[in-house]
Amino acid sequence: MQVEFWYEFASTYSYPAAMRVERAAAEAGVDLVWRPFLLGPIFGAQGWNDSPFNIYPAKGKYMWRDMARLCEAQGLTLKTPPVRFPQNGLKAARLALLGQDEGWGPEFTRRVYLANFAEQKDISDEAMLAEILSALGLDAAALAARANEPAHKERLKAQTEEATAKGIFGAPSFIVGDELFWGNDRLEAALQWAKR
Amino acid sequence: MQVEFWYEFASTYSYPAAMRVERAAAEAGVDLVWRPFLLGPIFGAQGWNDSPFNIYPAKGKYMWRDMARLCEAQGLTLKTPPVRFPQNGLKAARLALLGQDEGWGPEFTRRVYLANFAEQKDISDEAMLAEILSALGLDAAALAARANEPAHKERLKAQTEEATAKGIFGAPSFIVGDELFWGNDRLEAALQWAKR
Repeated sequence: MQVEFWYEFASTYSYPAAMRVERAAAEAGVDLVWRPFLLGPIFGAQGWNDSPFNIYPAKGKYMWRDMARLCEAQGLTLKTPPVRFPQNGLKAARLALLGQDEGWGPEFTRRVYLANFAEQKDISDEAMLAEILSALGLDAAALAARANEPAHKERLKAQTEEATAKGIFGAPSFIVGDELFWGNDRLEAALQWAKR
Repeated sequence: MQVEFWYEFASTYSYPAAMRVERAAAEAGVDLVWRPFLLGPIFGAQGWNDSPFNIYPAKGKYMWRDMARLCEAQGLTLKTPPVRFPQNGLKAARLALLGQDEGWGPEFTRRVYLANFAEQKDISDEAMLAEILSALGLDAAALAARANEPAHKERLKAQTEEATAKGIFGAPSFIVGDELFWGNDRLEAALQWAKR
């Protein structure tokens, strides 16, 4: 059974998950589907207009320390603070959704997470996103145009509505059949479930 | 270095943690200190007068499913729903704090968690708590009287204030020196840290 990896570019814990999910799934022999979505509308429906890590300072302080320990253990750079937190991942998510169909989605996704959490770059900056696309040998201008087409914008909205319908309330989340697993630390459990 | 295990009797994820922490710490060769506290005042300071699992239904629905999977994997019974959620663990916490000094705290704690999450019992019921104490060969009436002494009530309040001062915002939490680890799924990381 396959694992769906649902991620949001603003989400801190999605960063270590994105950097390890492909290898972990391959080692488990489980097919992986990358599913970018937006957490903003889901948080908004819960009455939050900001990250809960900003709304609840004790939780936020802990999260950054926890992230530092996790990234160190995983050999990942974490440079804090990011340009801002949370960053606006809308444009990057539209591009990642295009990449999902065309094979370059995973590498694009990893590079956007590195830009956000390892390189203190602004991931809503179109020039920065274009640089990533160009470095992957892609036509950045053509992709930016396609990402802005109304039908494609609607497709990302639909993806986010599907996340809500599936019970997703945070990121990263993993879905295996009808089972939801929330959090970077549930990746192994999700892969185990997929192998049952 | 020792690990402090901070727990609240109303907390769902504290149940699997309480049932496995002693063995896990022993296997890691790490000293363990049991620290009962109350989450109510901490949640209240964040503006919550109920469990976030009730305030945010998608999160609550997920938590119960996640708990079912965790308990199954750990060989623990989980009978839902409990008498109510969250239950009032004040009286049990006062008793557990007495037991902390006298060696019976860990076994009392495990039995209260079983009563709450495996047996659908009311853990605020003094007769039920007295049964647990008696089953441990203790003088339930004498302990209930001592638990209700003003100085002892203050001691539990001080324990909860210490939790807040240490940055604790949820349960279970583990503290190793100045490092905070939040959640049943961080027990192994806390033990690893203590062994560094």
